[in-house]
Amino acid sequence: MPDTSPRVAVIGLGSMGLPMALRLATAFPVTAFDVADARRDAVEAGGVIAARTPAEAAADADIALLAVRDEAQARSALFGPDGVVGALREGGLVILTSTVGPDAARDLAVTLAGHSLDLVDAPISGGPARAGNGDLLVVVGAPREPLERARPILEHLASTLTTVGDRPGDGQAMKAINQLLAGVHIAAAAEAVALARGLGLDPEQVVDTLGAGAAGSFMLSDRGPRMLQAYGDGAEVRSRLDIFVKDMGIVTGIGRETQVPLLLAAAAHQLYLLGAAQGLAAEDDSTVVTVLSPRP
Amino acid sequence: MPDTSPRVAVIGLGSMGLPMALRLATAFPVTAFDVADARRDAVEAGGVIAARTPAEAAADADIALLAVRDEAQARSALFGPDGVVGALREGGLVILTSTVGPDAARDLAVTLAGHSLDLVDAPISGGPARAGNGDLLVVVGAPREPLERARPILEHLASTLTTVGDRPGDGQAMKAINQLLAGVHIAAAAEAVALARGLGLDPEQVVDTLGAGAAGSFMLSDRGPRMLQAYGDGAEVRSRLDIFVKDMGIVTGIGRETQVPLLLAAAAHQLYLLGAAQGLAAEDDSTVVTVLSPRP
Repeated sequence: MPDTSPRVAVIGLGSMGLPMALRLATAFPVTAFDVADARRDAVEAGGVIAARTPAEAAADADIALLAVRDEAQARSALFGPDGVVGALREGGLVILTSTVGPDAARDLAVTLAGHSLDLVDAPISGGPARAGNGDLLVVVGAPREPLERARPILEHLASTLTTVGDRPGDGQAMKAINQLLAGVHIAAAAEAVALARGLGLDPEQVVDTLGAGAAGSFMLSDRGPRMLQAYGDGAEVRSRLDIFVKDMGIVTGIGRETQVPLLLAAAAHQLYLLGAAQGLAAEDDSTVVTVLSPRP
Repeated sequence: MPDTSPRVAVIGLGSMGLPMALRLATAFPVTAFDVADARRDAVEAGGVIAARTPAEAAADADIALLAVRDEAQARSALFGPDGVVGALREGGLVILTSTVGPDAARDLAVTLAGHSLDLVDAPISGGPARAGNGDLLVVVGAPREPLERARPILEHLASTLTTVGDRPGDGQAMKAINQLLAGVHIAAAAEAVALARGLGLDPEQVVDTLGAGAAGSFMLSDRGPRMLQAYGDGAEVRSRLDIFVKDMGIVTGIGRETQVPLLLAAAAHQLYLLGAAQGLAAEDDSTVVTVLSPRP
């Protein structure tokens, strides 16, 4: 009996792509591509076959799962020289897990359709640890048929798989609102910690006491303790600050297009831009607190 | 054997003062004052003796608990004609549960000390329902001795009683940070719901799906559903919008004094001011969403 498991090519082995590739390799044949040698080596130890180009990774694959940083990288990985398109078998499927915004997802879907390829818009949320444990939140925009083909892959990655709508871009729209909240909540936690320091309060007591009540948020409990580390040994980089420079840019762009005023999201975007301007782009996003309350 | 329970005068029977007075009356002799007849009548049904002035309420009381709206009301209730000072027995105690800011609490403590009265700075958080159930978060700034005298009263109101520091104002400082987070999180939830409406997504799905993940906050889960009611029958008033006009003003004032930039808190303050300017001051704070996405 032939093996009918879909063959998956993972493109992009960053903080989310790498754990997703390893997770998928526990259930499916997986090939993978990243520009960095070290990332390719890291997945080979987990049973993934590493490739030198997106095309090489996509050859013989049924599904290409994109976990690249932004729209430009997605376009390059799909349509550039040695891109996925042309290598993926006709009738194949592209799963887009990156956050690129609704318009970009729709544009990519149209271009892929011209190559007889379907797009399942499936941005993810949850961080690297949950990516490795199949515990992600995945918000999907896709017609029924390609979604059913993508479902085994997505269900192996997600503990919560929510269908937002039947068009590519619908998942991106929901993800943008997720990022609005996440990005504002991290910035609010930074303001709380900075103000506690300014007032001479114990920031740890602030995070612990207030996190359990009406002032609580996932991000206050998650990033608050990491912000305190910014004044000590520093926190490891789990999620880069410049991700929020990109994502809050997408959020405020959508607000502009839909004529919805987003005062806080816009302020948070400026705060992340300030962080990047101060050299924190590749640092953990929790270091944004040092923009408001500098290290001694 | 004489009854040694402290006699408590509750000044201010608003959304928090009224349930606190009723809660305290289950364990202590309680007198109470409010400017509104209806509020006085409401507590009398629960075993509280209503008084016509703060002085009348404080006569024979050991402790006056202030649950007024702001610093001006606190000064008037304490030091105005028919105020608490002069009626409360010498060596008595004032518990300040209102949010007035650290400087105001310190000023009140100094003036009260001139009348041989102690101040326990004990702002509260949690909302009316938890106030009635003894389930509040109380953050205290007070020296040990007056705090011990206040403790039976505070423990009857609080499920979490946290001592922030030993000076009046320390509780207010912590409460201000609580309000920073709460006020920003409500505004963020409003932006999320407004953007969902702008994008044609189901706002209820947004609140439910995202509230369980990295975008979650107490306020998204609590106020999000109430924001949806703003487009239907409307939500009952549980917490007035102008409370956040006042409290975010305190927050941004403290930020200015301590030279801590608070971009989001300042933006949220402007949003609540917009709400008040549009006639929503006495409405539930969740109606702030209609500033961003008007009712059809």
